[in-house]
Amino acid sequence: QLLDHIADRFDTGSLAGRRVVITAGPTREPLDPVRYISNHSSGKMGFALAEAAMNAGAEVTLISGPVNLATPAHVKRIDITSALDMLDAAQSTLEHCDIFIACAAVADYRPTSVAEHKIKKGNEEIMELHLVKNPDIVATVASAPQRPFTVGFAAETQDVISYARGKLQRKKLDMIIANDVSQAGIGFNSDENAVTVVTHDTETAIAQTGKRQLANQLIEQIAHQYKTTQ
Amino acid sequence: QLLDHIADRFDTGSLAGRRVVITAGPTREPLDPVRYISNHSSGKMGFALAEAAMNAGAEVTLISGPVNLATPAHVKRIDITSALDMLDAAQSTLEHCDIFIACAAVADYRPTSVAEHKIKKGNEEIMELHLVKNPDIVATVASAPQRPFTVGFAAETQDVISYARGKLQRKKLDMIIANDVSQAGIGFNSDENAVTVVTHDTETAIAQTGKRQLANQLIEQIAHQYKTTQ
Repeated sequence: QLLDHIADRFDTGSLAGRRVVITAGPTREPLDPVRYISNHSSGKMGFALAEAAMNAGAEVTLISGPVNLATPAHVKRIDITSALDMLDAAQSTLEHCDIFIACAAVADYRPTSVAEHKIKKGNEEIMELHLVKNPDIVATVASAPQRPFTVGFAAETQDVISYARGKLQRKKLDMIIANDVSQAGIGFNSDENAVTVVTHDTETAIAQTGKRQLANQLIEQIAHQYKTTQ
Repeated sequence: QLLDHIADRFDTGSLAGRRVVITAGPTREPLDPVRYISNHSSGKMGFALAEAAMNAGAEVTLISGPVNLATPAHVKRIDITSALDMLDAAQSTLEHCDIFIACAAVADYRPTSVAEHKIKKGNEEIMELHLVKNPDIVATVASAPQRPFTVGFAAETQDVISYARGKLQRKKLDMIIANDVSQAGIGFNSDENAVTVVTHDTETAIAQTGKRQLANQLIEQIAHQYKTTQ
């Protein structure tokens, strides 16, 4: 009976038979064998989306940076560390990907060179760190020859919707999910979130709720929008 | 009987009645509200030392950076994020501190300024990050007017003992515990460690063992050396 239930879900869920790739968590950009640049992403939103997509009948691959979260059942997980690793992993999935959801907080820049040994603290009171821009993973995916339906996230602290709409257009995305990380209690590392879903012709606010519930709502919106493009 | 056992340990352990302050884990140095520089320290060694010191009868304060570890029973924990926070916390404990063990992997440098809002990715292919040296917490403690017995750690990837001895002298420490983080399976983020305990006139290697067992051995060496200074 349980198996029937699961089979039923896979056959009839809003993403039945669809292959969904989701990136999650932070990336870490190494300076040397011990130090890195990273960010406060917990990965909770991406993991919740993976579970929700699986529950909607999709075959889910989760590409995750370093997080302390259990892999949702029936989800294929690929662990990576840096943005370059994540890009490689993302590109390796594109041949069999219908929907790509870029939820990871990818470092914009990485150190120009990675020291082989731990950098010794000198006597210098100041230090310059040379950084080079990382590839834009979601923009790369959205520009691929056989592009999947591509969904981005925009974590902003000011002018949230206008920055999000700018990214949607510039990166050629199909949908962008904007959230205001300057608000206490939502976003990075918290268990709740409130977002606005932006497409080329719509804007839909989703009120603050648990990340799991929000993930279910987002997956339904993604599935709906995806179908309109088929 | 259990209470008797505990009371006994507190009265007769090698650190009975001593107040021990231990720093543990990494620090995080913020670039803006979402990004930071950090390192791979798990905090396991510092937490194991806190438990071992408590078991040896000490009153233990653990000053910890962001880690995913449970506080050992009967240990007072102070959570901090940045090196400056850790220095403040350390200095606040000095009036009542007999032994200070600096096990944290404190960031040597922090960004010169912290952006109030998330830094927007520009079009620049490269970026310079301006860093300024953090205060040296263990050296500051060792130079305080009423200095505790001060123990440092040296995580190195090359010339381990000679770098460690240099630090011992330059920072005016009583003891330094040197480990070679370039060796696989020990040090940062692993469950085992192998170290060399360096004082002004001794060098004692401790073979690879679990961090808990190593912590017990180190606390015994610290207690022994501490007594010779009283």
